[in-house]
Amino acid sequence: MSDPAARANPLGDRPHPFPHRDLVSIYGLQPWEITGLLDEAEQWVEVNRGRTKHDERLRGLTLINAFFENSTRTLLSFEIAGKRLGADVVNMAVAQSSVKKGETLIDTAMTLNAMRADVIVIRHESSGAVQLIADKVDCPVLNAGDGRHEHPTQALLDALTIRRRKGRIEGLTVAICGDVLHSRVARSNILCLTALGAEVRVVAPPTLLPPAIEAMGVTPFTDFDEGIAGADVVMMLRLQRERMAGGFVPSPREYHMLHGLTPERLARAAPDALVMHPGPMNRGIEIASSVADDLQRSAITEQVEMGVAVRMACLDVLTRGRRGIEGW
Amino acid sequence: MSDPAARANPLGDRPHPFPHRDLVSIYGLQPWEITGLLDEAEQWVEVNRGRTKHDERLRGLTLINAFFENSTRTLLSFEIAGKRLGADVVNMAVAQSSVKKGETLIDTAMTLNAMRADVIVIRHESSGAVQLIADKVDCPVLNAGDGRHEHPTQALLDALTIRRRKGRIEGLTVAICGDVLHSRVARSNILCLTALGAEVRVVAPPTLLPPAIEAMGVTPFTDFDEGIAGADVVMMLRLQRERMAGGFVPSPREYHMLHGLTPERLARAAPDALVMHPGPMNRGIEIASSVADDLQRSAITEQVEMGVAVRMACLDVLTRGRRGIEGW
Amino acid sequence: MSDPAARANPLGDRPHPFPHRDLVSIYGLQPWEITGLLDEAEQWVEVNRGRTKHDERLRGLTLINAFFENSTRTLLSFEIAGKRLGADVVNMAVAQSSVKKGETLIDTAMTLNAMRADVIVIRHESSGAVQLIADKVDCPVLNAGDGRHEHPTQALLDALTIRRRKGRIEGLTVAICGDVLHSRVARSNILCLTALGAEVRVVAPPTLLPPAIEAMGVTPFTDFDEGIAGADVVMMLRLQRERMAGGFVPSPREYHMLHGLTPERLARAAPDALVMHPGPMNRGIEIASSVADDLQRSAITEQVEMGVAVRMACLDVLTRGRRGIEGW
Repeated sequence: MSDPAARANPLGDRPHPFPHRDLVSIYGLQPWEITGLLDEAEQWVEVNRGRTKHDERLRGLTLINAFFENSTRTLLSFEIAGKRLGADVVNMAVAQSSVKKGETLIDTAMTLNAMRADVIVIRHESSGAVQLIADKVDCPVLNAGDGRHEHPTQALLDALTIRRRKGRIEGLTVAICGDVLHSRVARSNILCLTALGAEVRVVAPPTLLPPAIEAMGVTPFTDFDEGIAGADVVMMLRLQRERMAGGFVPSPREYHMLHGLTPERLARAAPDALVMHPGPMNRGIEIASSVADDLQRSAITEQVEMGVAVRMACLDVLTRGRRGIEGW
Repeated sequence: MSDPAARANPLGDRPHPFPHRDLVSIYGLQPWEITGLLDEAEQWVEVNRGRTKHDERLRGLTLINAFFENSTRTLLSFEIAGKRLGADVVNMAVAQSSVKKGETLIDTAMTLNAMRADVIVIRHESSGAVQLIADKVDCPVLNAGDGRHEHPTQALLDALTIRRRKGRIEGLTVAICGDVLHSRVARSNILCLTALGAEVRVVAPPTLLPPAIEAMGVTPFTDFDEGIAGADVVMMLRLQRERMAGGFVPSPREYHMLHGLTPERLARAAPDALVMHPGPMNRGIEIASSVADDLQRSAITEQVEMGVAVRMACLDVLTRGRRGIEGW
Repeated sequence: MSDPAARANPLGDRPHPFPHRDLVSIYGLQPWEITGLLDEAEQWVEVNRGRTKHDERLRGLTLINAFFENSTRTLLSFEIAGKRLGADVVNMAVAQSSVKKGETLIDTAMTLNAMRADVIVIRHESSGAVQLIADKVDCPVLNAGDGRHEHPTQALLDALTIRRRKGRIEGLTVAICGDVLHSRVARSNILCLTALGAEVRVVAPPTLLPPAIEAMGVTPFTDFDEGIAGADVVMMLRLQRERMAGGFVPSPREYHMLHGLTPERLARAAPDALVMHPGPMNRGIEIASSVADDLQRSAITEQVEMGVAVRMACLDVLTRGRRGIEGW
């Protein structure tokens, strides 16, 4: 993965469709496909910073956000992305879901499909549930996070943030730190960043480090100070509250001492190391407030901004076939 | 009801308004009015299957979906219908409702009215609640299901589905099977299908069969095998989970054995009998999965598709007066 | 405050921007600014009564409704207002909020900001929370009610209702009656009505009357019959159910007898006194149904109607800077 040529699109600039109907995972994407999505997202960053944050290219298309797991940020981000592109956007509320009435997931998928959705965004607490739905419907499906499996748009927005702040991804050392074991964000980021030529480390307490993670092309560390040394990017993961209740973590305070990102610890990374967090943050647990709020180092709010742009790009690219548009 | 001439519109094709402000029930509709709504819905089936599922005829009108009872499918269907027609659509969330603060239903209705809604869609757990609201507001009201009373758009979408699959409704034998006693779907379908000239049977265990149901012009059966014999359409009803807890049903397993639609039982119906279910299904209880998934026989996902089209037609027709359009 | 000249805009009719980025409180607004917002709202009353209730002036702008406290009417009113102005409107659901995951309010604010909202409407159970958010974001913020602090659009819609029904506000005697202590509606109305030259009385049981309320330029009464005598406007407040459980109120029935607005009590006010209530009403507690439903006296549903118009005016005026429009 260290050869730039391997990351170039063999088809070059010639118009050709995005070769996937769905975006269920980073796994399976070619480096040039990832880069292409990031390139597409750049225009939306500019649009969203302008006076009129609106485009009509998804006009007449129906986007259904089907979130089976609670979410604020990601749902809001996809909803804003869809509306800014002019789509008819509807949210399927979890709490009122037929799923609660015992309907199977496939029946729910068939229902959304029968309503002639043009693109469906799904979050689900079970790994693999999004692919299961994608297999049953006739329109593009976007994974907004499924169990411990993947959260591809998070990885794309993180990559875009890094690329814009550092000018490149290739050759950077990125330390992904925290609850790697349970994290779909970590998985998608590992796949995305290694594909783009970064050197990726995962840093976690032994109870939260997946066995045989080396097979993903990353270097594992259980000592935070060692894992972060010289890193260009320090990507903190959210510690799920429920892990604290379980036996994975001794106590929030001890977790912070051993695995929290403090200014002292950050000093071991590269002098201009970028700090990232997918949010929402547990301040004082996995990250110290002074680090999170350091505008020179922290890219945390920029990640949120890039999220809307990346989702607009994905919605645009995935629906081009339905809109009769060649190439991407 | 067996005379086709009785179902023809005495005004013929001359332009005249739909003679009802609201759609609270199938009861009170003339056969030609029902047929007219089905005819209107056909165009929206085509629109929804096309590339651009959008029309601007409800532009500038405000549609309020006020669902006092949880719903996924029906709310989603009305929301998509309204947005595809270009209306400004807002949903009043149940859980956050002032009703929870002790406000009366009429005060809620007056509030929606004062906000100058152009059309209000209501679901409520009490029979008659929708009419009560309709009596208080100045705009068209659409019943999305009220208690055990009616669910008129469900009956219309079922009729449209049958008409498209069978080419006609008149003269068909339709068996409505399951919890007829508590079902507004059954009531609206009985009224709709008998008005259109079908021979309707209701098939239910004795505890779930309304007394004196014959007065609605249907033939009751308590033996499933007998009731389904030779039927052209087998319409299964959803068994509400709460009925299983009550004394109405012995056990889910026994219910399936006695009243579930299995392939063996379906073999007693006409060879090309259509299988329908309003969803969400309890697979393995009122219907066997192999029957539900038999694409030759099952019209279940098509019912969902027809739902959006029928609701678009109803929203369009009911708002014509406000939009200054003569006739329908 | 009794001198009309003091309420005239010193800049006259010359174009100049609304001199506040946010609308967090009535406190701090000049009388001519309040009057200007009411004047702006008049056009929207007419638009909302017309056939096409839609304008495109907020097209391309993103409005986020972030309601941390449950609400039906106010959320619905802002949502309708935003959609009728053509904005891309998204609601941040409380129940699914990251706040529930322990995120700080400021992090939530930074997230909404990073998504490039153009205007944010906030309701929060803590006094001051809206200002805290306004201080952190780059776009106009509208307060939809924060704790016991303020609810400025409620005061504006009440003022508009009075002005339309009475032809003026200056010189009127307005009695604000009920749970003044806990009421942000009372606070905002006191500030608004005194600024516009009304004589304001507050009428409450001793346990629900704020100490030193005279400092706000109002006359306090603990005897309802005395406080209402000769009043031109009787503005009832909602008795929060939780107050009844606390020790503030003896019993709903006794509250009604001592502090409820009955026809007998209303007879003590001016012969053409206007009755108002912010809703939702507790009929039979703070207000008798016969009074609430007296169309000659009650302006309660008109208040709801004015609410949408006032919110459209505020959204329009506050976003003019972003839209490059001079003056207001």
